[in-house]
Formats: sequence, C-alpha cells, structure tokens
Amino acid sequence: MSPSLDDARALDAADPLRGYRERFILPEGVIYLDGNSLGAAPVAVRDRVERAVVDEWARGLVRSWNAADWIGAPARIGAKIAPLIGAAPGEVIVADSTSVNLFKLLAAALRRQRPRRVILTEPGNFPTDLYVAQGLADLLTDAELRVRPAAELAGALDADTAVVMLSHVHYRTGARHDLAAITAAAHAAGALMLWDLSHSAGAIAVDLGAAGADLAVGCGYKYLNGGPGAPAWLYVAGRLQGELASPLTGWMGHADPFAFAGDYRPAAGLARFLAGTPPIVSMAALETGVDLFAGVDMAALETKSQRLQSLFIALVEDRCAGHGLVLGTPREPARRGSHVSFAHPDAWPVMQALIERGVIGDFRAPDLLRCGFTPLYLGYEDVWHAVEALRQVLETGTWRAPRFQERLRVT
Amino acid sequence: MSPSLDDARALDAADPLRGYRERFILPEGVIYLDGNSLGAAPVAVRDRVERAVVDEWARGLVRSWNAADWIGAPARIGAKIAPLIGAAPGEVIVADSTSVNLFKLLAAALRRQRPRRVILTEPGNFPTDLYVAQGLADLLTDAELRVRPAAELAGALDADTAVVMLSHVHYRTGARHDLAAITAAAHAAGALMLWDLSHSAGAIAVDLGAAGADLAVGCGYKYLNGGPGAPAWLYVAGRLQGELASPLTGWMGHADPFAFAGDYRPAAGLARFLAGTPPIVSMAALETGVDLFAGVDMAALETKSQRLQSLFIALVEDRCAGHGLVLGTPREPARRGSHVSFAHPDAWPVMQALIERGVIGDFRAPDLLRCGFTPLYLGYEDVWHAVEALRQVLETGTWRAPRFQERLRVT
Repeated sequence: MSPSLDDARALDAADPLRGYRERFILPEGVIYLDGNSLGAAPVAVRDRVERAVVDEWARGLVRSWNAADWIGAPARIGAKIAPLIGAAPGEVIVADSTSVNLFKLLAAALRRQRPRRVILTEPGNFPTDLYVAQGLADLLTDAELRVRPAAELAGALDADTAVVMLSHVHYRTGARHDLAAITAAAHAAGALMLWDLSHSAGAIAVDLGAAGADLAVGCGYKYLNGGPGAPAWLYVAGRLQGELASPLTGWMGHADPFAFAGDYRPAAGLARFLAGTPPIVSMAALETGVDLFAGVDMAALETKSQRLQSLFIALVEDRCAGHGLVLGTPREPARRGSHVSFAHPDAWPVMQALIERGVIGDFRAPDLLRCGFTPLYLGYEDVWHAVEALRQVLETGTWRAPRFQERLRVT
Repeated sequence: MSPSLDDARALDAADPLRGYRERFILPEGVIYLDGNSLGAAPVAVRDRVERAVVDEWARGLVRSWNAADWIGAPARIGAKIAPLIGAAPGEVIVADSTSVNLFKLLAAALRRQRPRRVILTEPGNFPTDLYVAQGLADLLTDAELRVRPAAELAGALDADTAVVMLSHVHYRTGARHDLAAITAAAHAAGALMLWDLSHSAGAIAVDLGAAGADLAVGCGYKYLNGGPGAPAWLYVAGRLQGELASPLTGWMGHADPFAFAGDYRPAAGLARFLAGTPPIVSMAALETGVDLFAGVDMAALETKSQRLQSLFIALVEDRCAGHGLVLGTPREPARRGSHVSFAHPDAWPVMQALIERGVIGDFRAPDLLRCGFTPLYLGYEDVWHAVEALRQVLETGTWRAPRFQERLRVT
C-alpha cells in the first residue's frame, strides 16, 4: 500500500529544507509541478526588481553601472551559481540565452579541436541544442553534427570527434546521464565534453570539477528560479579558458570595453564569452533566485528531490492504477533528474483537466504528463494532493470535456 | 548674443512635446544629458514591471506564456518599434543584444551574397560593431572585414562587397550618415546595406522603407527608454525575409517550437531570427518605453532634438568661450543625430565636475564631453542650466580638484 496523507505530512515535518518554502510566492490553491519549465518567484524578487527599476535605473541612471555594480553582475551571479554545479567562482558567467551560449561554446570547441570536426550528440536532446548545433555546422561547412542513440555514443567516439554535447537530464523522460563516466569516455577519445545542465542545476547535486568536465551551459529560469526567460549561464573549466575564443566578440567580452579600441582583444578570463550589454532588470531577478541557494546543501537537496519523485511514482502507480499510465522515467533515483513523466494516450486533455484543479504540470508531445519536483518549495503533502487530483481527473473522466481538447500554442 | 534663460523658457512654453516630460521619472536636481547611453525610466515602468513579476510570473507562473502573451512579446514590441524607423510591423522583432543581432544579420547576409565575401565598414564605428564583424570573419575564414574611411567607402564598393555595415549616427561625434544615399550606393554595387540605428531610433526621423534599406539593428536602452541592457531589436526588409537564414538557430526561431521536433525548420517570417527564450521582465520594461512613442510625430521629435542641440552649441560657444572647447559635431542639423560632443583637453575631470553639479553627460576617450538630447523629456531651460553649470565649472576651475581626476571603470 502506498503512503498515506499522514505519512506525507510526517515527511514534511522532518524535512530539513522545509523552511525554504516560505521564501517563495506560491499562489493559493495551486500545487506547482512545473518548476522545471519556469521556477516559482522568490518572495524577495518583488523588492529586488523594484530597487533595480526605481533606485538603480530611475534615480541612479547611467551612474549605476558603477554605483550598483551592474557591470559586475555577469561574473558576480556566475560565482554564486558555481558552487551549485561543482565549479570554481571564476568558471561560471551569466550571459545571453542557453541557445546563444551553446553556439559560443560549440564554435569555440570546434576551433580548438581542429582538425577534429564532429559534434557528437544523441537524438531527443532538448531541441534547441540540436538546432543550434545544426545551425553552427551549416554555417561553418567544415563541421558536422553526428547524432547517435545514447547506447551507441561510446562506440561513435573517434578521431574526428571534436566535442560531445549532451543534456545531463533529459527534458522529456528525466533520465540522467552519468556525467563523470561520459566525460571520461569523451576525454579518452580526445574530445571535449559539453553538458547542458538546464534540467539539473539547482535540483540535484552536480560536480563538474570532480568529473573534469570541460564546458557546460544552463538556463536561469528553471530550478534557479530566476524568472521567465532569465539570462542563462555558461561554464568553462579554468584550464581551458585561455585556449577558447568566442565567435561572438561583442564589446562586453573585450579586455577593456570602455577604452573603445578599434580592435578586439579578448578579456583574460571567462568574460571573453560575454557579448552585448546584459538585461539588468532580468539579471536582478535571477540574482534573487540564485541567492536563495546560499547555504543549501546540494546533496540534501537531491535527496529530497528523489524522495518527492519516489513518493509521486509510488502514489500514482497505486492510486491511479488501471488508467493506462506508464512510467517514462527511470525508477532508480540516481538515474533521474528532478522530474517524472508518465505516458498516457490522452496526456494533453488529462493535464489540462489537472491544471484546472490547480495542479500545474506540463505536457510534452506526443503523450507525456511531465511533473517537476522543485525540492526548495515542494513538500510531500503537495505530492499526495497532486496525485489525489490526478486520480479524481482519471476516475471521473472530466478530462473528456470538450474544453480540454483544444491545444494551446504554448504548453 | 546667445539666447537668454527667458528665451529658453519661451521655447519650452511653445513646445508641442512638452507634455511627455511628465511621463518620465527624472531625479530632483539632475539635468540628464546621457539618454543616448541609458534612457530615463518612464513613470509607468514601475507598475508594469511589478505586474510582470507579481501577476504574471509569481501568480500566473508558466501559464503566462499564453495568458500574458509572453510568447508574443518579441513580435508585438517589434511592431511598435517599426513605425519609429519607417518599417512595416512584421519587419522588426525584439531579440538578444545589438551585438548578437549584428552577428546574426551579418552571417545571414554573407551567406545570401556568396561568392561575395566582404563586410565593408568605416573605422570609428561603435566598437562592438567592428568586433562582431571581426569575430564573424575569423570564424568563417572565407569572409573579410574591410575598413575604409567614410569618404572612401563609395570607392571601396566592388564585386566582392557582400554587405555594407554602418552606424547611422556616430557614437562619438554625433555625425549622421545619409541613409538613403549610402543605401542606394550599396545597392548599385550589388551589396546589402545594414544600419546600426542605436543612436538614432527614437530621437530622429528614420525611414528605412523609403531608403529601401535591407537590414538594421538597434538597442532598446538609449532613446527607446527600455531600461539598462534592454533587449535589442533587428529589422529585415520584408522582401528579404524568406532568403535569409539565421546562423543562431535556437528553438524560438523554429517554425513550431513547441512541437519539439528533432530537425530545425525556420519560422516563416522574421521570427526565424529569434534564438533563445527572451528575458520577459526586461521585455516588459522595454515595452513600457516603446509605448510612450504611440502618437509621437517623429518629424516633430527630430525638430525638437535639433533645436535643443543648436541651442546647446550656441550657448556653449558664447557663454563658455575662451575655455578651449572645440565643437566635434556637425553644425548642420540634418547632419547630426541627437547628441553633441565638444573636445576639451581635460574632458574627463570637467565632465566629473559637471556631474557633481547634477548635469549628467558622458565622457568619451580621449577628449570628448558628450551630451545627449532626448527630445521626449528634455526642455530648452534644461539646456540653458546645463550650459550655465558647465560655464561655472570652467570659470571656477573646480574640475582641477583631485577627486575628479581618478578614472572609473565604466563611464
């Protein structure tokens, strides 16, 4: 028999991370299982953004580049993200979007690795990763994107492989790659390793340093709770920073941007991967989200994430049995990220009916109910009520109502 | 004799754009002559950003992609910028930074123009434009950046010229290129024309359509008053949109991003130049700035800008005579943008002393006092007081104080 509501409450009472819940704005009547798409807003973000707009911009005007250290924001916030992923402070910088950062790092990797010319990846990666790599290979003409099923990646590594690019946690299934083992295999073949940590940073323990990883990117708006479309970040191992050149040589990556020199000279460290002027108001929101992690033990965070997921899986398989749900995520906690997918032939309308009951999860084509578990603000009782709502949707068949059938543009 | 303070007040009383001043937050005791670096904050932006953070993000969560039309923001705001530069609504889209947009459009132009391989530009362009073009040429290896003095550009156009890239208004001197004539010359040589409108859009009348211009970029944080590091925008003439491919093929530029297809297929229109997820909070601030232009007659705006500048020049040359200031900007209004530079051998400390008196202008190396005139919120009396402050700084020699000598990192 699966755990009871009282069992769930007992788990919450014993949860060492329970106090973080109060630091987020969570709407009344909502159980939010979509923090892996867009994280919830920290309570502090309202005042922080108001300060950026009123005190720094409106009153400080252009003086705030110095007075409010806007100019230092990319490196400062990057240094706060670093400990969440096992990086040193100077190995992470905030810039642009995940897509643009992927482009920069892949182009830099290909140049360093010449005459190697292949970007190796797997199908079913988050599409923007594939698109960006395709677009770069088309642009360069002498590069190639090679896509092989995960199980065949090791065998596909060869003397042409310049860089292996993988999402650490799969955006649909939640399956997690072995970061250290794959990095080691790439290195053994002479390739660089680039990880997309969008679906793992801030939810599970990641140690890029221990794995000897070379490059990584990640977004700011999922588990880092940085706000919609928050600026993204990138990681370059310290040992490689002097060897990599960004193809996007904007003025913020110059060694001395305010000298307005005619010739480009890359900044000494990771700042060379900055391009244009960063969106300061969105950066302020991101910093508020990242600041919440100060003092959080990432191993404890991952433990809670896995327990939430295990509880969800157990409850769904018990209480929603017979309704055609099939688990699409690994059962073994160490092989998961922080979200769980169940396949259902009518996943779209079922999710819409669930959302109407205040349980916000996500749909991923063609047939997945995807539920994310953000350990900073979700509790075990939330999980219990979410599954109860799902049970009611399935048992009453409310999802068959016509209003749930129409597909929206964005999901 | 130059105009008196009463003359300036009479000009303000007769100014048809006078009412816009009330729509901006302008700090007490400050005369702001740096809106060409960072525009002032609209009064409405505080509530608009609060709504984006609290109502849309914190309460609406991921549902706001539809409910608050976050997904439509790049095209929606672009359509509002379009009439300010003589473009059709579907010819402008908001995305990334000016640097990244330059990269995308230059790469797209080079591909369309093969076997032409040269980007032609002038020295002294805003440095990021030169840096980005250099970086792209280095990346592609078969492309070349050719830099020729403005007077020699026409003669430098040849059968190798793929695209001519110029800043419409020079960031240091304020000198304005003849947009229509240079576009025509580029076309006559078979080249595409790309304009950087960062220092003109929102301050002077620009008509890309009448000039038959092909491509343009511009930033959101100067005369559009979109906030520090506001997202930038790009323009592609409708006739070219189907022929240009972005090298930065992120998911937001896909024909159907939420289908999560494995293969990239560019969106039909200008949306193909989107890359990653846009920073929504900063987009909300930008939209507030752009909304202020609804109903503004751009010809009237330019007329006021030129009158403010002419008044400034006349007052400085009269009232600050004998202090070694030399005008670095064209005298003819039609050849100016919206800022005026005076050279002075001690421009740095003079500007610091002026800022201490509440007149915020800018310094540009090596020797320029640069003052921007934003016609939406500046008045003629402001100009009079600004020059009076400058006169006092020069006559009393306060700028010689040691505290004004030290250079800050960012100016």
